[in-house]
Amino acid sequence: MEPEIKIRGYHTDFYNHVNNARYLEFFEEGRWQLFEDYLPPEVFTQGKYSFFVVNINLSYMGQAKINDIIVVKSGMLKFGNKSAAFRQQIVKKDSNEIIAQADVTFVVADKSGKALIIEDEIKKMLLNIPPFEN
Amino acid sequence: MEPEIKIRGYHTDFYNHVNNARYLEFFEEGRWQLFEDYLPPEVFTQGKYSFFVVNINLSYMGQAKINDIIVVKSGMLKFGNKSAAFRQQIVKKDSNEIIAQADVTFVVADKSGKALIIEDEIKKMLLNIPPFEN
Amino acid sequence: MEPEIKIRGYHTDFYNHVNNARYLEFFEEGRWQLFEDYLPPEVFTQGKYSFFVVNINLSYMGQAKINDIIVVKSGMLKFGNKSAAFRQQIVKKDSNEIIAQADVTFVVADKSGKALIIEDEIKKMLLNIPPFEN
Amino acid sequence: MEPEIKIRGYHTDFYNHVNNARYLEFFEEGRWQLFEDYLPPEVFTQGKYSFFVVNINLSYMGQAKINDIIVVKSGMLKFGNKSAAFRQQIVKKDSNEIIAQADVTFVVADKSGKALIIEDEIKKMLLNIPPFEN
Repeated sequence: MEPEIKIRGYHTDFYNHVNNARYLEFFEEGRWQLFEDYLPPEVFTQGKYSFFVVNINLSYMGQAKINDIIVVKSGMLKFGNKSAAFRQQIVKKDSNEIIAQADVTFVVADKSGKALIIEDEIKKMLLNIPPFEN
Repeated sequence: MEPEIKIRGYHTDFYNHVNNARYLEFFEEGRWQLFEDYLPPEVFTQGKYSFFVVNINLSYMGQAKINDIIVVKSGMLKFGNKSAAFRQQIVKKDSNEIIAQADVTFVVADKSGKALIIEDEIKKMLLNIPPFEN
Repeated sequence: MEPEIKIRGYHTDFYNHVNNARYLEFFEEGRWQLFEDYLPPEVFTQGKYSFFVVNINLSYMGQAKINDIIVVKSGMLKFGNKSAAFRQQIVKKDSNEIIAQADVTFVVADKSGKALIIEDEIKKMLLNIPPFEN
Repeated sequence: MEPEIKIRGYHTDFYNHVNNARYLEFFEEGRWQLFEDYLPPEVFTQGKYSFFVVNINLSYMGQAKINDIIVVKSGMLKFGNKSAAFRQQIVKKDSNEIIAQADVTFVVADKSGKALIIEDEIKKMLLNIPPFEN
């Protein structure tokens, strides 16, 4: 379920559009929802794996202003050997205009904090998450 | 040492003044600084006591805008039996105009989370913190 | 419609519960929703009136933690001559436990920023907002 | 003057390190300071030019925790035809360890919001900002 957020005064800044940093909270909200929808709960309840973000490539294509309703779309972008990436977009609900896009590269770590190879059980777990679709 | 903060675009909101919620971060900054300046470090390193805020009475008297430099003033306001209170003010550095005031009532708890009577060692510890002065 | 918010990692702080300042954002969200639900749109589109918060009396009664779902309840608390107040509560959705309460006193100002007497048209407008109910 | 920030409880999140989104506020603070230090004030007072961030490539290399003191370093990274980029780093003050790096690509727009070619007066203005140095 893609989060929908109505833009309020406290989301915006001096320029009367959503502040750069706030977008990262919206994207984080999208990832929490993605995990909730597609990952087995024991990942979280047992703290078996942790996800560490190592890079976010963030593009601002438009502006969200007060009263806009935005939707946070998220999906898998790619798999590497030791990391994988989500793609996320913030789009205006009415026009589908893309406001911001984030490619979020992460590693999966075990309880000791060691980054794991993305294979076998971990790869299978991540394959539950649908690929990003425009 | 009273925290000084220069107001930037990301502190302000739709109304082009500092957002209500942000003031609470400024006041929290003031309390961290107060603790650092006047409480013995073992309170924190050993986690002997915890401070829980139970009430904040927050008055907005003015507006801070971009490029204003504000100062966060903090001190003891009063002692009760099971709680005590700080007074804090955000003032403009140049004019000393009061922008916001917070009376912050807190309890002191032990490691188990139980609220303690404000007497003996705890009272003595809190008496290190100077009273609030206008 | 009372806002419902699922607590995520970014809402919480060092103490693993929702940060004090964040509650003010939740309460602000509740007020935007209240205005949207009960005030005539021309208040906002024509900027005829502005609402300025002058005091928030904020009590923390419990703790919201990650995965909790909270509901922001809001309603009119009282009318004065030059100000009026909302009551707002953040409650846990499942247990109805009150986490935090805010009594928010505000003035209504005209376009020039002058605070107006709460009578006639303004009183009538505010009476559209239901009283706070536990 | 590079901003120095002592990490407090409200900067950190569920994982007890500084939240992803908060870093963007620290980087924004660094850019405001950079502008203040190196750009002519009339850029701002007369609103002659606006800076729009179009991309942030953000790498998280370490973790900042409570009581860490971090420094935000900023400088010019490169010039393009229609855009230019800053590099910014958040480093621990004591160890100089890099915690996060942001390459921030921006356009310069005139009052009408039109992106301008980075040449002549604009290029000269940006050349006042020292190149990023490790």
